[in-house]
Amino acid sequence: MTGAVDSYTVADHLVDRLAELGVDRVFGVPGDYSLGLLDHIAHHPSVTWTGTTNELNAGYAADGYARLRGIGALCTTFGVGELSAINAIAGSYAEHVPVVHVVGSPALAKQTQHRPLHHTLGDGEFGHFAAMHADITCARAALTEQNALVEIDRVLARVRDERLPGYLLVPADVAQAPVDRASVPLPPPTDGTDPEALAGVADPAPRLLDQAPDRGGIGVLAGLLVHRFGAAGALAEVLAAGVPHAVTPWAKSLVDESAPGFAGTYSGAAGSGEATRRAVEDAAALILAGVQFTDLNSGLFTQRITRSRTIDLGARAAAVGPAVFAPVELADALAALAPLVASRPAVALPAAPAVDPGPPAADGEPLSQAGLWQEVADSLRAGDIVLAEQGTSFYGMAPHPIPAGVTFVGQPLWASIGYTLPALLGACTAAPGRRGVLLVGDGAAQMTGTELSTVLRLGLPVIVLVVDNDGYTIERAIHGPDEPYNDIARWDWTALPAAFGATGATVARVSTAGELRAALAGPPGFTLIQAVVPRDDVPDLLATLTRVLGGVAR
Amino acid sequence: MTGAVDSYTVADHLVDRLAELGVDRVFGVPGDYSLGLLDHIAHHPSVTWTGTTNELNAGYAADGYARLRGIGALCTTFGVGELSAINAIAGSYAEHVPVVHVVGSPALAKQTQHRPLHHTLGDGEFGHFAAMHADITCARAALTEQNALVEIDRVLARVRDERLPGYLLVPADVAQAPVDRASVPLPPPTDGTDPEALAGVADPAPRLLDQAPDRGGIGVLAGLLVHRFGAAGALAEVLAAGVPHAVTPWAKSLVDESAPGFAGTYSGAAGSGEATRRAVEDAAALILAGVQFTDLNSGLFTQRITRSRTIDLGARAAAVGPAVFAPVELADALAALAPLVASRPAVALPAAPAVDPGPPAADGEPLSQAGLWQEVADSLRAGDIVLAEQGTSFYGMAPHPIPAGVTFVGQPLWASIGYTLPALLGACTAAPGRRGVLLVGDGAAQMTGTELSTVLRLGLPVIVLVVDNDGYTIERAIHGPDEPYNDIARWDWTALPAAFGATGATVARVSTAGELRAALAGPPGFTLIQAVVPRDDVPDLLATLTRVLGGVAR
Repeated sequence: MTGAVDSYTVADHLVDRLAELGVDRVFGVPGDYSLGLLDHIAHHPSVTWTGTTNELNAGYAADGYARLRGIGALCTTFGVGELSAINAIAGSYAEHVPVVHVVGSPALAKQTQHRPLHHTLGDGEFGHFAAMHADITCARAALTEQNALVEIDRVLARVRDERLPGYLLVPADVAQAPVDRASVPLPPPTDGTDPEALAGVADPAPRLLDQAPDRGGIGVLAGLLVHRFGAAGALAEVLAAGVPHAVTPWAKSLVDESAPGFAGTYSGAAGSGEATRRAVEDAAALILAGVQFTDLNSGLFTQRITRSRTIDLGARAAAVGPAVFAPVELADALAALAPLVASRPAVALPAAPAVDPGPPAADGEPLSQAGLWQEVADSLRAGDIVLAEQGTSFYGMAPHPIPAGVTFVGQPLWASIGYTLPALLGACTAAPGRRGVLLVGDGAAQMTGTELSTVLRLGLPVIVLVVDNDGYTIERAIHGPDEPYNDIARWDWTALPAAFGATGATVARVSTAGELRAALAGPPGFTLIQAVVPRDDVPDLLATLTRVLGGVAR
Repeated sequence: MTGAVDSYTVADHLVDRLAELGVDRVFGVPGDYSLGLLDHIAHHPSVTWTGTTNELNAGYAADGYARLRGIGALCTTFGVGELSAINAIAGSYAEHVPVVHVVGSPALAKQTQHRPLHHTLGDGEFGHFAAMHADITCARAALTEQNALVEIDRVLARVRDERLPGYLLVPADVAQAPVDRASVPLPPPTDGTDPEALAGVADPAPRLLDQAPDRGGIGVLAGLLVHRFGAAGALAEVLAAGVPHAVTPWAKSLVDESAPGFAGTYSGAAGSGEATRRAVEDAAALILAGVQFTDLNSGLFTQRITRSRTIDLGARAAAVGPAVFAPVELADALAALAPLVASRPAVALPAAPAVDPGPPAADGEPLSQAGLWQEVADSLRAGDIVLAEQGTSFYGMAPHPIPAGVTFVGQPLWASIGYTLPALLGACTAAPGRRGVLLVGDGAAQMTGTELSTVLRLGLPVIVLVVDNDGYTIERAIHGPDEPYNDIARWDWTALPAAFGATGATVARVSTAGELRAALAGPPGFTLIQAVVPRDDVPDLLATLTRVLGGVAR
């Protein structure tokens, strides 16, 4: 067998449709049930195959890719491959990331014999693993020659429109079945907004906004769904009027954090500055734009929102005070509110808060968590993609203002430790030329560390900052600071690039402010910095959260 | 909070019951929902906690441990942790390995509020992930204070008796709930054999055995279930009479491969030697003992078994020719057959087949697959635990006779690539003092390679042989030999132990027979050998299989 591709097949249709949606790279690990399918990816004119070291990492990479690109895809093999990736798919579901999971399965001609093939449970059944995707995907299909085109189009359109993962089970023989080339593109998304419902919003909204004497009394808190549902432009229209506004940690980098009126990152009573809290909680009229309050995104549900003063815009429904209108899409609702906000009297807005770094740390000063994140924040520049692991990294960076044009990626709801390292691979390949900045603790980085190999192989421009504090610091902060289960092996991270076969990587082990500054200012290309900090030093925001979290877990 | 443990709790009962079943080590990764539970593991007098670099590896390690010890356990955290491990649990199910998956979940007191906590899908539901375990565990329970003791005992007894994985969801508050110490041990397994059914077997069996003129005409083919259902002693009784016998590849190391009458490893038309095939296929009376024919365990279903000449003993049912009797446990059926076999006339048995290695390869001869496995086979000694990855390693080693007292571990049904490296950790901790010999390709080893860190941290005596052939050779043999999806980054494996913080590891990169021999004969402790072989060289048995497999996948 060669990899030659002769006629147009189901696999070609699938890859063409992915390309049509903006996918130019598919992640995964080959398996014998998917090899035929992979030919059609590898030979596609605009789509590239990127093999990862394992399938969980492929799922994380596809998620990171989709956060930058709008949609992502991975391809795994039946049973063993798909189940290895399933945690990543669940994470994409929780965090509203549209990822297509393509799984190569035994040929239907073989399935109908119900024999105990490898990668099965040995019971002759082939439906177990698709069923395990039911709760974590918005659409699923098991392809046959008869349904393939319709089902591929249905699942991909749902993924695009729902902003959630989908699942396609592609038997090896179905992948190779000849089909006609599609003559029309996928139907565009339908506008989900009911004009009457939208008019319903526009009717009571002015009265609620009237509670504010001027634009300075209006507050906007923007959340993740603005990004996911393509409403950033509509949000910008509202903000252009000049109103105080904040974001949730989950939505960090959604707005320009240096603009007048920006009031900071709001996470309830835990870690929000006083000015941030006032802008949200004391607004005479508050617009919640695509906000979902989860425990780690709200200071453990310590948000104080008064419904009678709030217009709450969800992905598909809008509430003005106690009245709910649906279906109303987020962007439409924001667009309708923009002129209403602009019609209120204008005021001068306070400048965006800046963290006063104080005098720069002396070169020889030992690194602390506080100093570390300040140095990193100072080193960021427009265009950077910052991935902050859900741990000391996320909580360390969240309070720091970041420059406009930086994309900030975290995972505060699913919070799967190890996520960001493969997500770096996905994000950087989705946005060629932009620099990736990975902020990750040593415990987390060990979970998925093999994927640095692929980052190096592709020559991506990244800074990988491994915070070496000798264990699971976030867990230590919550419970068992001296228990052996929070210990890990202490790696020499600076030796890894060479072990992974890379040449020309820049590596540094730093333990003072000066060493870190120098390393951050190093040459372009791949830089790995192992930053040694005291074992039990934790960022302030995390310390606040974990005091409460110890109780939650109990 | 400290990790101090004050009163006897649900968690203590769980860990005590695991200890009662023979578990002295629990694998896993801590998470905030499981930290309280982990205190009771870490402080248990006879149970040790072993943190792994990620949860999939914990699952593989628990599986490897259970294969040696009879039962294993891992502990993960809700959602992210348990789903990362789920591929390993499915593998344990497919391969009949009793593993207990303990999952720490949010406190019931919190679950009842149905809030979007981290590690959930954000929908306030907490049952999604337990449901995903339904098809891959024999018993599951979501613990409450009220049901905890009964449900723990029920699930553990089922795991012990069914030889399949089980799942326990332990909310953080339930783990800490005080309970009375159990006054009696778990009830012992009930004898599942119906005496009437067993008598049914003993009635027609002599007539079937009469088809053989003497013991030389009787054949025994022994399979994996003999090991899993504790019937090795009963099998030995049958073989003690002196009959020709073989094993399936899945059951390799179940019997002494140097004993007279041993006829080799039978895998149908693919790779079985002529004498092996005759002993099985031409036996006038054949006893199948715990054999399950799966594709990779039967030369892709090329076994030739004639039912009218066969007594087929399954885990719980026995068939004599066309007549089926149940319930009859495997060990009981074998014990009943032993005197019937011994009553037939004895004959002298042929000596066990030996592979003629020919003259030893010259020191400077470049390594080939054939030479590689011969050298490895020659280096094995009683007590070794050999783990052969499902790829070139498994197929390379399967045909080689191994010394008595060696345990051979493979995974030919689930065939999850990367399994053996963490399984090495589990197997070696389950059998302290025995040497582990890991045979793994570079592509497979990359998938789970971080776990070498834990093997090094625990100071286990192992030889890790990484077959460096620059990619997924088994996939290349099946399809796409020159396709980029079968390429991987080329690692310097010899640099990894130092990068993982280890000192005193022995490492060697070898490409000739002499270099390999010297490395295999190196000092005790941790030895890593990177064996460079030609890219597309594959073992004979694999070449035969993959010619057919290319067709299966299509």
